[in-house]
Amino acid sequence: MITLSLIGIGTGNPEHLTLQAIRAMNSADLILIPRKGAGKADLVDLRRTICAEVVTNSGTRIAEFDLPRRDVGNLDYHRGVEDWHDTIATVWSREISAHLDKPGRVALLVWGDPSLYDSTLRIADRLDLPVEVVPGITSIQALAAAHAIALNEIGAPFVVTTGRKLRDNGWPKDADTAVVMLDGECSFQTLDPKGITIWWGAYVGMAEEIVLSGPLADVGAQIVSCRAAARDQHGWIMDIYLLRRAPA
Amino acid sequence: MITLSLIGIGTGNPEHLTLQAIRAMNSADLILIPRKGAGKADLVDLRRTICAEVVTNSGTRIAEFDLPRRDVGNLDYHRGVEDWHDTIATVWSREISAHLDKPGRVALLVWGDPSLYDSTLRIADRLDLPVEVVPGITSIQALAAAHAIALNEIGAPFVVTTGRKLRDNGWPKDADTAVVMLDGECSFQTLDPKGITIWWGAYVGMAEEIVLSGPLADVGAQIVSCRAAARDQHGWIMDIYLLRRAPA
Repeated sequence: MITLSLIGIGTGNPEHLTLQAIRAMNSADLILIPRKGAGKADLVDLRRTICAEVVTNSGTRIAEFDLPRRDVGNLDYHRGVEDWHDTIATVWSREISAHLDKPGRVALLVWGDPSLYDSTLRIADRLDLPVEVVPGITSIQALAAAHAIALNEIGAPFVVTTGRKLRDNGWPKDADTAVVMLDGECSFQTLDPKGITIWWGAYVGMAEEIVLSGPLADVGAQIVSCRAAARDQHGWIMDIYLLRRAPA
Repeated sequence: MITLSLIGIGTGNPEHLTLQAIRAMNSADLILIPRKGAGKADLVDLRRTICAEVVTNSGTRIAEFDLPRRDVGNLDYHRGVEDWHDTIATVWSREISAHLDKPGRVALLVWGDPSLYDSTLRIADRLDLPVEVVPGITSIQALAAAHAIALNEIGAPFVVTTGRKLRDNGWPKDADTAVVMLDGECSFQTLDPKGITIWWGAYVGMAEEIVLSGPLADVGAQIVSCRAAARDQHGWIMDIYLLRRAPA
């Protein structure tokens, strides 16, 4: 029997690793590390660094594989994602067969936490194997920690959403706080900034971390230019922000 | 100069500790541990256990203090909370003066993560000292990990809310997924269960962890009785759940 262990490793600070994650990595017979291509090379390096630092079990094999790319030409976004996940599941199966000649535990290191805007759980479901999840520090918490802010006002709800949803639907109903992820377009620019405060961060938790905050009307443009410059400098960027408006 | 270090310790599994949290604890001159009274004794014991297991710096002093109780007789809920936080800040100051005779780092161990439905950051703001936050595993992630589920559907938003808001306002607008926290009354009972699935957990991450899931119409009553029995058995309970409805 093969067991899959999906291990949240946090957002790029090797010290985000939990003791549970370290134990799970050392309990694995095989750790699979996806290579995503040059643009995201930093993340492959991070996984290598983490393994080098905490894997002490000589029986744990570490294998890298090339992650297939999504067909961005598919106009049906959801269908394209489903097909891509099918392909990745096939590659996982092939890699597991190639590196494990007996039953055992196979670990995948998941950026952040496997529950949050990550496809690893959905791909794992395709293999019909027992799955164990080890939670990890998310970029939401790394953002809040970097700014030393609470996500919620006292007793109040908040929404976690995407740049696309913010652009398409405007400010989410029923909440005065929104955490925005997966936003390549600084979609806060589509909002009327009046009364909105933003706490923004890129590379949160990493050595490259950049944070900016203030009234959206004052710092919005600065964030747009800072983000563009950082992406040029590093060749990639991951950012996240929290928006809060004065209650109605 | 005194620096406050607010350290997320996860949800009761000592292995939720991150390497960053362990380093921060060992960098502290003083760790303050609040005693909340008999009903929550488990959590004080957890903090003691964690300190005993990971604090190796002989210069780190560990001091317990009695946390003042909130005046639940105050009919103005928000005013009552503000007053309570003022009182706790005063007690922190007193304890810091009593145990530190020079500048240094004071650490507080925060259940879960300091950013999520926790008052530690708000109390810290009253002391006007530099604050460092170390993120920790939240009950949201521990719940998702226990069930091996994603919080979001692909590209879709979700709401994090409270039992009170769910009771007062019904299903949150603009999202088909809601994480409900701080719910002492199984407020999912106020919803029409048709088409809703629930993933529930109590003591998530701890040895006592209990999880139940299924269509709300089928398992709702079972969760209510299971929760009551567990609370009787342990003398306290912390639970959380995720609700998902079929998209409109």
